[in-house]
Amino acid sequence: MPRRLLAALALLGGSPVAALSDEGMWLPTAPPAKVVKERYGFDLSDEFVQKAMRASVRFSGSSGGFVSPDGLVVTNHHVGSDAIQKLSTAGRNLLRDGYYARTRADELKCPDLELNVLQSIEDVTERVVKAVPASLPPDKAAAARRAVLAEIEKESLTKTGLRSDVVTLYQGGLYHLYRSKKYTDVRLVFCPEAEVASFGGDVDNFEYPRHSLDVAFFRVYENGTPAKTPDHFKWSGSGPAAGDLVFVTGHPGATQRLETVAKLKHRRDVTLPYTLARARALEAALIQYGEESPEQRRQAANDLHRVANGRKQFVGQLDGLNDPPILAAKQAAEDELRQAFRAKLSPYAPGLLLPPGELDPWQRVERVQQAFTGFEREYYLFERGDAFASDLFAAARHLVRLADELPRPNAERLREYRDSNLDSLKQQLFSPAPLYRPLEQRKLQTSLAFAAEQLGGDHLTLLKALGGRSPSRQAAELVAGTRLLDVAERKKLFDGGRAAVEASSDPMVVLARRLDADARRLRKRFEEEVDEPERQGFAAIASQRFLTLGTSVPPDATNTFRVAFGTVKGYEVDGKPVPAMTTLGGAFERSAALGGGEPFSLPKRWTDGKAKLDLSVPYNFASTADTIGGNSGSPVLNRAGELVGVNFDRNRHGLVRNFVYTDVQARHIAVHSRAVLETLSKLYDASELVKELTGR
Amino acid sequence: MPRRLLAALALLGGSPVAALSDEGMWLPTAPPAKVVKERYGFDLSDEFVQKAMRASVRFSGSSGGFVSPDGLVVTNHHVGSDAIQKLSTAGRNLLRDGYYARTRADELKCPDLELNVLQSIEDVTERVVKAVPASLPPDKAAAARRAVLAEIEKESLTKTGLRSDVVTLYQGGLYHLYRSKKYTDVRLVFCPEAEVASFGGDVDNFEYPRHSLDVAFFRVYENGTPAKTPDHFKWSGSGPAAGDLVFVTGHPGATQRLETVAKLKHRRDVTLPYTLARARALEAALIQYGEESPEQRRQAANDLHRVANGRKQFVGQLDGLNDPPILAAKQAAEDELRQAFRAKLSPYAPGLLLPPGELDPWQRVERVQQAFTGFEREYYLFERGDAFASDLFAAARHLVRLADELPRPNAERLREYRDSNLDSLKQQLFSPAPLYRPLEQRKLQTSLAFAAEQLGGDHLTLLKALGGRSPSRQAAELVAGTRLLDVAERKKLFDGGRAAVEASSDPMVVLARRLDADARRLRKRFEEEVDEPERQGFAAIASQRFLTLGTSVPPDATNTFRVAFGTVKGYEVDGKPVPAMTTLGGAFERSAALGGGEPFSLPKRWTDGKAKLDLSVPYNFASTADTIGGNSGSPVLNRAGELVGVNFDRNRHGLVRNFVYTDVQARHIAVHSRAVLETLSKLYDASELVKELTGR
Repeated sequence: MPRRLLAALALLGGSPVAALSDEGMWLPTAPPAKVVKERYGFDLSDEFVQKAMRASVRFSGSSGGFVSPDGLVVTNHHVGSDAIQKLSTAGRNLLRDGYYARTRADELKCPDLELNVLQSIEDVTERVVKAVPASLPPDKAAAARRAVLAEIEKESLTKTGLRSDVVTLYQGGLYHLYRSKKYTDVRLVFCPEAEVASFGGDVDNFEYPRHSLDVAFFRVYENGTPAKTPDHFKWSGSGPAAGDLVFVTGHPGATQRLETVAKLKHRRDVTLPYTLARARALEAALIQYGEESPEQRRQAANDLHRVANGRKQFVGQLDGLNDPPILAAKQAAEDELRQAFRAKLSPYAPGLLLPPGELDPWQRVERVQQAFTGFEREYYLFERGDAFASDLFAAARHLVRLADELPRPNAERLREYRDSNLDSLKQQLFSPAPLYRPLEQRKLQTSLAFAAEQLGGDHLTLLKALGGRSPSRQAAELVAGTRLLDVAERKKLFDGGRAAVEASSDPMVVLARRLDADARRLRKRFEEEVDEPERQGFAAIASQRFLTLGTSVPPDATNTFRVAFGTVKGYEVDGKPVPAMTTLGGAFERSAALGGGEPFSLPKRWTDGKAKLDLSVPYNFASTADTIGGNSGSPVLNRAGELVGVNFDRNRHGLVRNFVYTDVQARHIAVHSRAVLETLSKLYDASELVKELTGR
Repeated sequence: MPRRLLAALALLGGSPVAALSDEGMWLPTAPPAKVVKERYGFDLSDEFVQKAMRASVRFSGSSGGFVSPDGLVVTNHHVGSDAIQKLSTAGRNLLRDGYYARTRADELKCPDLELNVLQSIEDVTERVVKAVPASLPPDKAAAARRAVLAEIEKESLTKTGLRSDVVTLYQGGLYHLYRSKKYTDVRLVFCPEAEVASFGGDVDNFEYPRHSLDVAFFRVYENGTPAKTPDHFKWSGSGPAAGDLVFVTGHPGATQRLETVAKLKHRRDVTLPYTLARARALEAALIQYGEESPEQRRQAANDLHRVANGRKQFVGQLDGLNDPPILAAKQAAEDELRQAFRAKLSPYAPGLLLPPGELDPWQRVERVQQAFTGFEREYYLFERGDAFASDLFAAARHLVRLADELPRPNAERLREYRDSNLDSLKQQLFSPAPLYRPLEQRKLQTSLAFAAEQLGGDHLTLLKALGGRSPSRQAAELVAGTRLLDVAERKKLFDGGRAAVEASSDPMVVLARRLDADARRLRKRFEEEVDEPERQGFAAIASQRFLTLGTSVPPDATNTFRVAFGTVKGYEVDGKPVPAMTTLGGAFERSAALGGGEPFSLPKRWTDGKAKLDLSVPYNFASTADTIGGNSGSPVLNRAGELVGVNFDRNRHGLVRNFVYTDVQARHIAVHSRAVLETLSKLYDASELVKELTGR
């Protein structure tokens, strides 16, 4: 054990200092120029980073990049699949069949896709800290923080017209104001068949070697014409080679590397098991729903992919958190930092206890976890909406809350109803994307039943949610009775405000109304008993970390723009080498070796067109750059800033990246830029698109 | 609500008295002759029941029946599938392809199938009650009960040579000694393709209308030749018609209709959610394992079917327990009985409270549930073995415990190691059925991870189970290192006894050894804090029930022989009629309507041979008879005692039968005897088998 612990510490660099590895999802305001220079002899200029920032695109929860001056965006198929699903109908299955718009006129307008491009960053930490004095009790502190954030965002929106979000970094150690240009007219240009985009399905997901054409192209429009995007990436015709330095830009979602051991254990023992259980419940229900007919399978395809993807991730994360050396290394690093904190408190007697009755920030964070455990599942189920896996319920709740919130002053509203967020919210709420009653019913039934499994059948809020019926009957009655599938009905209730919402007899609206007091109570408890004290604890820890380590450790990922770097590189598993790249030919080989059935089938276009392809063309590649969920669709760049790949996954060994970076086996995985050109031109007859990408 | 409650009470008959419905899985010692006479004018003779008892066959956890004088047994394909899977290899996929032994010499010997046929029943309640005086404290009472049961079984085994089991009825109200003839040489005669046996897969499971040829035929041998079975069912060539009275014989597994509301709520809030979560975890893992290659899919097929079947059942049961009228009706019936109990205690002041500090039996049962909640999951995970979903671990534990238990006096052993059970145990332990390291590893990894999800990563017994590794690495090392796949290795350890087991360095054995003290502690707690006081509470409730209701309510199902009766009958769903029978033609129609893909594909033999079939032949039928899991494979008989069908399922509305019987929509489902003959002769060319069944 001690030997393994030592090995693990070595693996992790002995402390969270990342200076000697490719670790880090770096802020554009503090790029890793020094490390990159030291490790690669490359000058990472501010200009490189700033241009990459303006050419990178934020999808909701993931990434993409401009690849032409005319608003063309590349991302992953699995990032675009929500939009592709919504553009599909019983007669037109774009997910299954793919799509290519030969002319601009054929580009399909997505019902509710919003893209954002970061324009500028401002540090507002001082202003936030000043507005929330440490002396305030938690409820007052939370209100004060809410108010100052709303004020900053509103001010910026008014001043610049840009989408403005204050971002929390270092778990509350820093606050940055991000201003983004928003695009709401986004059209589908190209997507391949899902079969080839997610070749290998759940089996190959989070594995390597891979053979996936996980790309899709969209175009942003302004005033009905393609937007001008002078900041864009040049598409590399040659792509990267093994050993090359690459950069990955994008919007990594969430890591937990700077969290305390107590919080990680809470994730391991409470949050993740709950989250995984819910994913499994939905996955089983969606699989069964899809088996009932080909059309139902089509309807459920995107949900199922998302849920299965989550399930596999959570399993990997839990396995990592239950791997003793990982938490032991975390504990060692934490002890070191904590020692430094205590030494600072009593410089003449380092390690001395705190004054009696006082907790250090690590203890405060631990106390918060204990408090949260008491109502965490209720909070997720009734406030986050986990008990109601239904877009119809989500719409009903928004309508009920908008009626309450809009009359209030901006700074006092729940965050999602602030002026700075209203446009985006309305785009979601009034989306004409198709909804399917049977699918909504199945999901709702499953999630209501899941709530009962989690809380027991006598839970009072659950009983309100069920309205005296069993989960299956309640879901059936709610979905059969609601009129919210109709966008006009949603608009009517929105326009009618509080009076209309209160008068509505729509069963979804009635349910959302009936639950709102309970749900808001849970939200308030969360904000005051969890979020606020945790922020304060982490802010104190962050100060100590700045003192000890400076800014050599980038903050945890927060779904904001970051830059990572690494080497295109294979690895070994059980002594056998896994090469850095696969080839197009490898896809045919793998399909044949596994009998050619799902999930290893290839589209007819591919099997018919095999002879046209150069099978030696690199297909997917792996690099050591530091990525996480949210980096899906991230541009991968070479030293010249050209796009050489589109990131789409991590391998299994990278599933613990939430908690710890290693480059021994963990890799991110990208589609090679050359494979995209090869297949677009030889299989998809997409010469116009190729011309736009290559300028030839 | 009051109106719905009244309706529900009406539905349930207002009280548990079943006299006016087809409810009941009746003991052969107390058959429902009176009710059947009243409702159907039919004289159900003791001779009919006794013959049916000796012609009915118990599979482990399910049912079958003799259908020729030469030991031929019919059951469900899904009952036989465990044996069929074990007879399959990478090159011979009997589950997928089916099998027919044209001659006796072709009949395939199952590696570890044991069948039992009940021969006689003896009431031993008095002897058990006398041996366990009410004054004993729980630990002494449990030991005394264990001793007297062992003594009775041993005595009977010695005297008769028959397998002897004392069965607990009415949750401890009665004890019966069942003596069975055991067959251990069982051979596969016929099974159809899984495609047609479980047509519709998970989608159609627990649904109706159905189109499944869920039958398989085995033959029992004695001394190398077919056993003589003069007590057998005549196969009906015509089968039943709608409206016919039918009987179902077999071994219904477990119902909970006589349980108290507190125990049902415990099931709803604790036991079932846990059980369902585990089923979902295993199901997701098995699906993924099977997707990795056709061969892996073959290996996992039977496990997957079993787990998915459980998952669907648990979902239905939970939905029922969360349906307020069901529990309200239970509560009303319980209140009535409890009122009678209290009236008896204080006849001059009915309803008076018990003496201070004393609990009535319902309160005692409730107290037991609270106590169990504190260690229930640990008990399931470490003692029942839920944390170790691996046949290899199961073998290791048996070896470790046999070494400890066999030297002890019979009466002091854990129940499964008593002399009366040893032969059956050895047949399992030394089974040459193939095991697959990768499948064992995947299941073990999943179940270890599930244990961590349930108990948190710091649980001490879990840490012992993981041995300082993550679940995935521990499973990999255990399965890679064990030699227990080899039957000879298991025999060597068994024969070597305690010395061999203690000296073994096999990692599975080491693990089983390391965990045994913890697991036994949990078992002891369960027996003393749960099982024993619950039995005592239920015995008191049962006495009251006998006083109030006599023997008009049969005991809950306990996997022992029972007789049910009912009418072949359709029902209505949302105002639309569902007919009592489907036809062979319906299978082709449903397959075509759903695109013919999995799970609605039909074997080539069927699509090619369609023209040969009389498509109007009845295929599956539904009746009101009262069945539950364990009735799979149950013979369905007509008034003449002929076999007219083979029960294989309930419909969705019957999933709450665990808790409550209704005949409004709930039905059991059987394969029609005529469809078996039609397909055997026209599609499977099985003229010898048909001749044996029909005598022609």
